[in-house]
Amino acid sequence: MQDNQDIEQYLYQAIPLAQAMAVRVREAEGERVVLEAPLEPNINHCATVFGGSAAAVATLAGWLLVYRYLQLAGLRGQVMVRRSQMDYQKAIHGAFTATTLPVADLAWQRMAAALAKGRMARLTLVVELECGGQAAGRLEGEFVVLPLS
Amino acid sequence: MQDNQDIEQYLYQAIPLAQAMAVRVREAEGERVVLEAPLEPNINHCATVFGGSAAAVATLAGWLLVYRYLQLAGLRGQVMVRRSQMDYQKAIHGAFTATTLPVADLAWQRMAAALAKGRMARLTLVVELECGGQAAGRLEGEFVVLPLS
Repeated sequence: MQDNQDIEQYLYQAIPLAQAMAVRVREAEGERVVLEAPLEPNINHCATVFGGSAAAVATLAGWLLVYRYLQLAGLRGQVMVRRSQMDYQKAIHGAFTATTLPVADLAWQRMAAALAKGRMARLTLVVELECGGQAAGRLEGEFVVLPLS
Repeated sequence: MQDNQDIEQYLYQAIPLAQAMAVRVREAEGERVVLEAPLEPNINHCATVFGGSAAAVATLAGWLLVYRYLQLAGLRGQVMVRRSQMDYQKAIHGAFTATTLPVADLAWQRMAAALAKGRMARLTLVVELECGGQAAGRLEGEFVVLPLS
């Protein structure tokens, strides 16, 4: 069983921008991912979080959820984001979190079934950004999983 | 008149993630912005560009276009991304560019008119990502400009 620090190290090695953004893994179960990032490396000209950083951390959370689900379910596949829509609701003035919303069991089952048949799978998920306990943004992302032979 | 290197330095200082992504400014006129970024600092687990980096560079290009337009037109305002939709069309295997598509004169005029009245302005623009001369992605972003008193 990997702990959050191992997963963080994997992220840093696989996606160096995660380290540049100083992303920390707070939760990374198959059911939910929570990432956290501080203001400083992600700051913009207004002393708030650069929108590109916020979207990148949210994308990373979504990607990690699918990656961990596959890992914990013993499935193999390459996870990639295909499309996303980001809504910036509030300026983020400090450390922020990116939390994945629950994905329906049926959607996971469909993904697993497609992979089992050697087909590409799709999954849409939502990630919420929060700062100081307040909603700050929302990403809806469509991820694809390519079967690995 | 600022040259591309000055603008790059401003970007690095205002948005440190731009430096972490090794973004270079290729063009930054009021009409068009072209940014370029290499693979290495933006790489993912598949040895292609991490989607979050691609979206962040595209967002930066859009933000810079509005920022430069205001600057060259002698207008003052705080530019922020409000919403964006990113379509990842192809895996990016090397250095890539983010190029803004032309914005209609009327849209710029409306923005300037809103700012002149001390109102918040909105502008929607499109950024295209390319790698090796091939389209690789597309961001449609809605930016807001807050008047500065």
